Amino acid sequence: MAGKLRSIVIGATGLAGQQFIAALKDHPTIEVAAVSASPRSAGKPYAEALRTANGMQAWFVPEPLPPAAASMTVLGSAEIKAGDYDLAFSAVEADVARELEPALAREIPVISTASAFRYEDDVPLLIPPVNADHGPLLQEMQRRRGIKGFIAPIPNCTTTGLAITLAPLEQAFGVQAVLMTSLQAMSGAGRSPGVIGLDILDNVIPYIHKEEGKVEVETKKILGSFQKGAIQPHAAKVSCTCTRVAVLEGHTESVFVSLRKKASVQEVAAAMREWKGAEVARHLPSSPPRWIEVLDDPFRPQPRLDRDAHGGMATTVGRIREDGVLENGIKYVLVSHNTKMGAARGAILVAEQLRAQGIF
Amino acid sequence: MAGKLRSIVIGATGLAGQQFIAALKDHPTIEVAAVSASPRSAGKPYAEALRTANGMQAWFVPEPLPPAAASMTVLGSAEIKAGDYDLAFSAVEADVARELEPALAREIPVISTASAFRYEDDVPLLIPPVNADHGPLLQEMQRRRGIKGFIAPIPNCTTTGLAITLAPLEQAFGVQAVLMTSLQAMSGAGRSPGVIGLDILDNVIPYIHKEEGKVEVETKKILGSFQKGAIQPHAAKVSCTCTRVAVLEGHTESVFVSLRKKASVQEVAAAMREWKGAEVARHLPSSPPRWIEVLDDPFRPQPRLDRDAHGGMATTVGRIREDGVLENGIKYVLVSHNTKMGAARGAILVAEQLRAQGIF
Amino acid sequence: MAGKLRSIVIGATGLAGQQFIAALKDHPTIEVAAVSASPRSAGKPYAEALRTANGMQAWFVPEPLPPAAASMTVLGSAEIKAGDYDLAFSAVEADVARELEPALAREIPVISTASAFRYEDDVPLLIPPVNADHGPLLQEMQRRRGIKGFIAPIPNCTTTGLAITLAPLEQAFGVQAVLMTSLQAMSGAGRSPGVIGLDILDNVIPYIHKEEGKVEVETKKILGSFQKGAIQPHAAKVSCTCTRVAVLEGHTESVFVSLRKKASVQEVAAAMREWKGAEVARHLPSSPPRWIEVLDDPFRPQPRLDRDAHGGMATTVGRIREDGVLENGIKYVLVSHNTKMGAARGAILVAEQLRAQGIF
Amino acid sequence: MAGKLRSIVIGATGLAGQQFIAALKDHPTIEVAAVSASPRSAGKPYAEALRTANGMQAWFVPEPLPPAAASMTVLGSAEIKAGDYDLAFSAVEADVARELEPALAREIPVISTASAFRYEDDVPLLIPPVNADHGPLLQEMQRRRGIKGFIAPIPNCTTTGLAITLAPLEQAFGVQAVLMTSLQAMSGAGRSPGVIGLDILDNVIPYIHKEEGKVEVETKKILGSFQKGAIQPHAAKVSCTCTRVAVLEGHTESVFVSLRKKASVQEVAAAMREWKGAEVARHLPSSPPRWIEVLDDPFRPQPRLDRDAHGGMATTVGRIREDGVLENGIKYVLVSHNTKMGAARGAILVAEQLRAQGIF
Repeated sequence: MAGKLRSIVIGATGLAGQQFIAALKDHPTIEVAAVSASPRSAGKPYAEALRTANGMQAWFVPEPLPPAAASMTVLGSAEIKAGDYDLAFSAVEADVARELEPALAREIPVISTASAFRYEDDVPLLIPPVNADHGPLLQEMQRRRGIKGFIAPIPNCTTTGLAITLAPLEQAFGVQAVLMTSLQAMSGAGRSPGVIGLDILDNVIPYIHKEEGKVEVETKKILGSFQKGAIQPHAAKVSCTCTRVAVLEGHTESVFVSLRKKASVQEVAAAMREWKGAEVARHLPSSPPRWIEVLDDPFRPQPRLDRDAHGGMATTVGRIREDGVLENGIKYVLVSHNTKMGAARGAILVAEQLRAQGIF
Repeated sequence: MAGKLRSIVIGATGLAGQQFIAALKDHPTIEVAAVSASPRSAGKPYAEALRTANGMQAWFVPEPLPPAAASMTVLGSAEIKAGDYDLAFSAVEADVARELEPALAREIPVISTASAFRYEDDVPLLIPPVNADHGPLLQEMQRRRGIKGFIAPIPNCTTTGLAITLAPLEQAFGVQAVLMTSLQAMSGAGRSPGVIGLDILDNVIPYIHKEEGKVEVETKKILGSFQKGAIQPHAAKVSCTCTRVAVLEGHTESVFVSLRKKASVQEVAAAMREWKGAEVARHLPSSPPRWIEVLDDPFRPQPRLDRDAHGGMATTVGRIREDGVLENGIKYVLVSHNTKMGAARGAILVAEQLRAQGIF
Repeated sequence: MAGKLRSIVIGATGLAGQQFIAALKDHPTIEVAAVSASPRSAGKPYAEALRTANGMQAWFVPEPLPPAAASMTVLGSAEIKAGDYDLAFSAVEADVARELEPALAREIPVISTASAFRYEDDVPLLIPPVNADHGPLLQEMQRRRGIKGFIAPIPNCTTTGLAITLAPLEQAFGVQAVLMTSLQAMSGAGRSPGVIGLDILDNVIPYIHKEEGKVEVETKKILGSFQKGAIQPHAAKVSCTCTRVAVLEGHTESVFVSLRKKASVQEVAAAMREWKGAEVARHLPSSPPRWIEVLDDPFRPQPRLDRDAHGGMATTVGRIREDGVLENGIKYVLVSHNTKMGAARGAILVAEQLRAQGIF
Repeated sequence: MAGKLRSIVIGATGLAGQQFIAALKDHPTIEVAAVSASPRSAGKPYAEALRTANGMQAWFVPEPLPPAAASMTVLGSAEIKAGDYDLAFSAVEADVARELEPALAREIPVISTASAFRYEDDVPLLIPPVNADHGPLLQEMQRRRGIKGFIAPIPNCTTTGLAITLAPLEQAFGVQAVLMTSLQAMSGAGRSPGVIGLDILDNVIPYIHKEEGKVEVETKKILGSFQKGAIQPHAAKVSCTCTRVAVLEGHTESVFVSLRKKASVQEVAAAMREWKGAEVARHLPSSPPRWIEVLDDPFRPQPRLDRDAHGGMATTVGRIREDGVLENGIKYVLVSHNTKMGAARGAILVAEQLRAQGIF
């Protein structure tokens, strides 16, 4: 294991934290050196901290709990010596993130799934194939804040698939406007309490608190340009309705886009199929062979069938059609794995990118 | 029962046919005088025709099978003497409708849930509160075709809720364009085979064969104007993506509308809340107290909680917000009961309207 | 409303408390005079106490929130003057019940869905048609504890359907032994957090904490005999496996019974069909026309189709067959509504019985 | 690929047929040399035969369609020259099996998932770790029927997990009687039409046509002894109730067993954990490292979490407890993958066993 980057996973007992533990198990260049969680868990072996009062082993990702992680003693936040690690992956809630992440970032890079710092001026929202060129803003952050590390939050999981599919359209035809309705999986809500079975069975919940605003702002920031040490948000208008459906994993999004330049269905499909994304992101350890898979079967993509495309790192697109309402309108459906590319694995990919760029 | 209109239900053993039987059970002015179904069922008592080889009573609506219907002998189509009835309700598939409905319509009115004749020039698509004024086109049909009855198909169940919510917007502000993504219930697909459990559990199916085209064409026809014996489709542009979700009953639709005249969220909510619909439709036996219920709770409407509003005859709307993409854009979510207002009960409502208008 | 019994609902904001509010709305002899809940809710109008931070109206039963209840000010437990009410319905958790119910019972009858006192010697577990004759044990409780009221807990919701179907078998043939596997609905777990959607979709959870022991002990107590001021548990052996399935409401139970006397399938069906239950319970306001509905369709009972039989107060039985393993073995499947007969409405029925017996 | 056994998959377009194609993709000793299906598919490339009229690629197993199979021309049954293959895997319905399998068996071994021949005297029902010693009955069949091949049906998928868990109990303690309630996955019903979503969502279906009789008879046959050229069914009594739940894959079974010799929970767990099964089955290409996984977490096994244990070839057991009703009673819950060990992969395992035994 010599030579691997030593990471600490913060918020390790929650669902997103577990996803980091699972995703890093066989990672070629990053290892889990320590885990941290709330005071209730601190001091216990990780496997014990996951055990509930009634005997349940609360490990919720499909992959088995790695034995090495199982025996690690969970650190309380006060016990973390940031200097012992090369980087931190943070899976804490926004309010905890607001305190803990800046403390860690004084010393080391923090890659986070929390939303706490996403909207600050010196903070990029990185999706490696889309906007790896925003990475250097983190060096600006270091200068401004006088810190050795940085905070690099990843976008909201609903933003990720949308931004990835818009990127090739922006490059090929320009994007004027986006209207999107999401059908989101339950795992996006975590487990405390997450989505209650009584609420979602035989049902749709047409509202996810604060989600639509996040997607609208984040999409413009991610597609924006990085110039003179600042990100200029993209001028496209974005409007969303976000709903929750009875799906375990994998967000489905129905997208209507107005392009700047007219494009046929074939041209749109080709633009997505052939898109390679940012050079630096093409061959990272977690990069899939293609960022977007375009399917011709009209019944696809489906979240259960397509969420795991290329290990959950690829966005799947189908049903590309002309839209007769918007100027140069096209419409399509996408599926993106909200807890893989949209969460822990996406954060690990960001770490890989920033390392490849020499930013840490 | 003297004085009630005597109806025959065609396609009585299928899901939509059963809904007619259930909905007419206590109807004040229309009774089920006979039932007809495929040759396999003909000659059997209705309750027996519903029994499968393995002993199951294949009655699928929640209300109990009315004893009067249970004992009726199912007629084969060749045995129907149209003149014995005042009207027919048809719940057959489109291909059967194409043959059977014109034969019946020579003698009597046929109100149908089938799509076979929806797109012909002399056929209105009636939603009583929205376009009762299109009813007289049926008299035009009688003249042109030289028939004593007529065929009055109701719209696709996905069109119904959309058209009802657009009607007050059209009246108050004008409608320029509509983009809609549906999350449709399984009952819309019927039972032969309908949606297979293996396909829909933990999943979304992003395609419903021919559905989007139906909604786009029908919405414009319903909102169109009836002049000089013909319907002029409304000029609004309509674009849809129709998906299937794991919901039993109740279609959810995420709607983005461009209005002709700017309107605030409050004005839009008020226009929907206060909308009374066509005069003739206000006090029909099946009319709900309000056609649209507007909810303020941001988590509503939900199909399981709201589909049965006013006996499944009201459309529920929530999440009315400004949309920053479309010109004078607003967005909202609606729930409409696809097998009540959107099918059998909606067809019965049409019969009530046409009777009230003296068209039969 | 003059002349109705004035009840206070304790734990009124939770799911079970809401079921009491809904069930008492049009009750002919009992009214809701006050509602009580935790300190967080105290002092607010009930409708406000139900509203969450993100704007949701957290009213979870299908019936609408009664306006009279909506405007009641929620009382904290310290503010309850028991003497102001004729009885209390308690829907609090077991630990709260342990403190609050005895305090109220000093003055007034407490009918409770909590398990806290179910297993004490002077406490009957009443299912009116089954063991109304255990009611007088409450007078024994009053004597022993020197209290004016009493605590009458109802059984666990999984016990209820089982005991009801065993009662006619016991009377007609005798019951030697019972093996039962339950497939329980999610509503039995309440909402805090209840069953998480991520856990139950596409899944079965084969364990419900403490449930099996409850059913085993309670069934024997309910079927036991009341003699000399004490309940002698029934001698039958009972063994259960309790599982959770993705069903909203309605517990399904697969039951294998060894009878003392051999009985045919027809005899068993007749015994259940013809069973009238205790005389005093036959015509209470909440009594269904029959306590047990026996269905011949081999595909029944199904929880979604049968849980609401007779307003959720009847237990539905089907698939009665001989069992070749147990002595005089028979097997069947039952469905019982866990939050109607098995919770609030069952508790109201107990109040009705005790009133009819003159116990309060 | 030289040296692999050349198999033909019969009924290749159905769900079970697809599972054979997927399971054999990388098999070390058996290859798919041809595929056969109904006349509707015959003559088309396999991938085309899977495409429906509305454009859907009807490939339903999670693994991708192997390109080699995709391009094979589907044979009609009349075109099959049995002599071209080393063996056939049959996934046809029982009525087709009754004609087609004997024809093939004149020449080659037929391993089948169909029930057509399971109950004939000269036909063993093989689960390799349990009753590999029944294999030679196939040679008896060859003699009696004068055929070069044979028909080896595998048991019903619900029988498989039950028989596997009973085998170590039989060996260690003896099995007197078994009462089992199953909670079966939808995939067991296939797709034509299989279980309809409208029937199973928010529901349990308490009946599966003919299933209980199959399990009762098959379990006794599998656990029986092979002596003097015939199988003597085991004397244990078996009684079942089979239900369907909203689960995609993986049958859950709640089992109560009466042992001949008293055994503690620990002894039962140890017997299952340490069970190695028949010697010949221990190291077949498809054998899992353990046939039974015993879990201590009381919330396990769960079908979604445990069905894929060891590639779906292991049966997972949990909740082992004493049962106080039956003589020397124990009870437990098992999960078995109905379409892997219980279908195609189980059939392939049987082929591997018979090859290892030199029976073909």
